[in-house]
Amino acid sequence: MHVAAVPDESTELAGKDGPRRRGRRPGGGDTRAALLDAARVVFAERGYDGATVRAIAERAGVDPAMVNHWFGGKEPLFVAALNLPVDPAAALNEVLPGDPELLAERILGRFLQLWDTTGGAQLATLIQSIASHDAAASLLREFITRVLVIKVVATVAPDRPELRATLCGTQLFGLAFVRYVLKVEPLASADHATIIAAVAPNLQRYLTGPLP
Amino acid sequence: MHVAAVPDESTELAGKDGPRRRGRRPGGGDTRAALLDAARVVFAERGYDGATVRAIAERAGVDPAMVNHWFGGKEPLFVAALNLPVDPAAALNEVLPGDPELLAERILGRFLQLWDTTGGAQLATLIQSIASHDAAASLLREFITRVLVIKVVATVAPDRPELRATLCGTQLFGLAFVRYVLKVEPLASADHATIIAAVAPNLQRYLTGPLP
Repeated sequence: MHVAAVPDESTELAGKDGPRRRGRRPGGGDTRAALLDAARVVFAERGYDGATVRAIAERAGVDPAMVNHWFGGKEPLFVAALNLPVDPAAALNEVLPGDPELLAERILGRFLQLWDTTGGAQLATLIQSIASHDAAASLLREFITRVLVIKVVATVAPDRPELRATLCGTQLFGLAFVRYVLKVEPLASADHATIIAAVAPNLQRYLTGPLP
Repeated sequence: MHVAAVPDESTELAGKDGPRRRGRRPGGGDTRAALLDAARVVFAERGYDGATVRAIAERAGVDPAMVNHWFGGKEPLFVAALNLPVDPAAALNEVLPGDPELLAERILGRFLQLWDTTGGAQLATLIQSIASHDAAASLLREFITRVLVIKVVATVAPDRPELRATLCGTQLFGLAFVRYVLKVEPLASADHATIIAAVAPNLQRYLTGPLP
């Protein structure tokens, strides 16, 4: 089950790596794809903390060392399994530095840039997948909890980071849906400056403002 | 194409009304269902303003007078075609009266009450349908424009009601998605008072606050 419809890289990688020359599994690309498939199942079933590298490798029928070899660890494998159009770790490193009171502006700027580039079709596929499969929803839930909470909100908000993170999620997700999938005007074709001026104060309140 | 998966009432109504006793079309329930199917196509193709009662009736193969007979006019037919779990006109009449500065609280209270009752499954189906069919997205876009803009936002906000309406849409839609479909904690099981205290100031800003 793929979360999004971006092309799978495994074929290309297999070609580069010269498949069908080692071990029981025919080639590197196949190993990588098998690990991704297994990761999606195991993360969805057990959650991030419950999913072990050993269990994922076992399900894929490969050696656990292959997780480090292909992905560099459990967290990068998890992010790869989400099949997002951008590497969230890299995107976060771009927006986190700077004035915490302007963090919402930086997040929105990066967010709009990302989805304006990838377009609505991919987002629609992602949402459709989430709405139709519990496993996909479970993966995204893990993603929000692990990435948004721990890496973003907790760095700027001392209190209730989990609640703040989910509230940020409502605003960002809703913005993407209305702008890129529903395409409701005037939001669908508003420029970034207008959207940031309208939405950033609300998002910033969720990040650092007073909460109940 | 049905926008949501709520049970179609046509069978029941046909039974009540005694189908297969009049005219070219076999019965009232069938006429009603045919009008709904035709309305979904014509509204999606032409938008609310472009869709005429005559064109919908023609596509359904019934007399235009049947639209008034079964639905009471074009707007109620449009709302029925959306197949929502609640009559938005009735819901709006509940929340509009009162202090405009507390409108967001009243909207959120009604919104949470509605979706808590109907549960996440129906919402997931609705979202899935919107993400997979342009026609469904088009219908919902019309709904946001016609109902949210004209009936809610324009009554409290003097300036930029369309932008305000779409911004409200981002917050409400995102809230429903994260709470009921993704079910991310702590938002998924937070009580209404907590959510209203957290979200109402943001929604109220979109309704009546200063915008760019």
